[in-house]
Amino acid sequence: MELGNKERSLVSKVMDGLISGIVEERYGAILPPQDVLSKEFDVSRTVMREALSMLLARHMLDVRPKIGTRIRPMRDWRMIDEDVVSWRFRAKPDKTFLRDVIEFRALIEPAACALAAERASAADLAGIRDAYEALSQTSPGDAGCQAADTLLHTRILAASGNQFYQQMAAIIRGALSLVNPIVSERDGGWANIVAGHGRVVDAIERRAPQEAQAAAAAMIEFTADELHHALTQEAIEQPR
Amino acid sequence: MELGNKERSLVSKVMDGLISGIVEERYGAILPPQDVLSKEFDVSRTVMREALSMLLARHMLDVRPKIGTRIRPMRDWRMIDEDVVSWRFRAKPDKTFLRDVIEFRALIEPAACALAAERASAADLAGIRDAYEALSQTSPGDAGCQAADTLLHTRILAASGNQFYQQMAAIIRGALSLVNPIVSERDGGWANIVAGHGRVVDAIERRAPQEAQAAAAAMIEFTADELHHALTQEAIEQPR
Repeated sequence: MELGNKERSLVSKVMDGLISGIVEERYGAILPPQDVLSKEFDVSRTVMREALSMLLARHMLDVRPKIGTRIRPMRDWRMIDEDVVSWRFRAKPDKTFLRDVIEFRALIEPAACALAAERASAADLAGIRDAYEALSQTSPGDAGCQAADTLLHTRILAASGNQFYQQMAAIIRGALSLVNPIVSERDGGWANIVAGHGRVVDAIERRAPQEAQAAAAAMIEFTADELHHALTQEAIEQPR
Repeated sequence: MELGNKERSLVSKVMDGLISGIVEERYGAILPPQDVLSKEFDVSRTVMREALSMLLARHMLDVRPKIGTRIRPMRDWRMIDEDVVSWRFRAKPDKTFLRDVIEFRALIEPAACALAAERASAADLAGIRDAYEALSQTSPGDAGCQAADTLLHTRILAASGNQFYQQMAAIIRGALSLVNPIVSERDGGWANIVAGHGRVVDAIERRAPQEAQAAAAAMIEFTADELHHALTQEAIEQPR
């Protein structure tokens, strides 16, 4: 039922061989069928299937009915383990974690906004504007509010055109899920958040990288301050 | 031999349950033994072993002989899939990939150097100095050269104290493995690289964040320029 140690090391070897073939562009766009690959590597179909499923889970392959197993563009390969990111953000955050998240977000997002202002296609801009409109029409209690916010941030990162920034989307989403529920509870917090996003979106549309960067930095600073106040207040209201 | 679909979904469920228990701090520092966990989740030992091995591979657990399975601090949990990163960097880089790597590195490393200048402990500083001395005594042809460079950069990221920056080490290592062989081949390239690192290390030791940041940015800009020249030259020497 479970792969033994011998099979596991075989799976690793096969994965390594497949990767070599892929990065050396020996296969073209579509991988040979599983039974052909099993013969090429001289392993059982079970081992080959396991190796392929590891690559599939990492968004390196795509199974297309009737076409076969397509090799995905390398920029899609998942360097970030989204499971671990979401587990990490499920835990009650300690002070160091909050500091680290805000620090990291304050580095990534303003830079991504600047790149988006330079590189966004017309379709990117339309998608960003749509997501912003959706966000501005929800309020914190609504079911779709977090999703709208997430979509806007993800689209901006995508529009940066840089695949490393794009991969950081999972971490940014985690940061938002942590920060939003706290900040939007505060008086005027939500109105400020929406206005802050609006300034970022406007600057991206006007193709003004420095303004987009500054607006994003101001927005993140605002949420960091609000978060700080909220946490301090909580500490006063509920002394431990 | 292989887990079937039913067992796979069981493994996912068990993983999810284990994560919940861990983030809600239900287990303390050491997980209960495997057979106790199997009973708690009402699954076979095989399924439990598979679920635990998934968490182990992500640096969430640690097996200590005679002590048991320790839950690792959350900052150690691997959000980056180092396998995918190294595979990604094994492929022949296209122009967009190079641009993206340099852009990302130019964002992360100078910021990490600034934080290291603020937060490095005495032990961190000693480790950084040691790694720099080792680097300055090697030359590009040497076996240990790449390793020395990697160690220095990894130690600086570690000294930043920010767990997200630390997790980016795998990507930075990939960037170095890509850029160094090309840049160090160029006349005076290596001497300049060593001198550039020296300025970064000095600034960190003097606890001068802005200087550390500027020195790192200058170093990365230098390698980016050299890389650009090298690639342009290559294109001239070997027209396609």
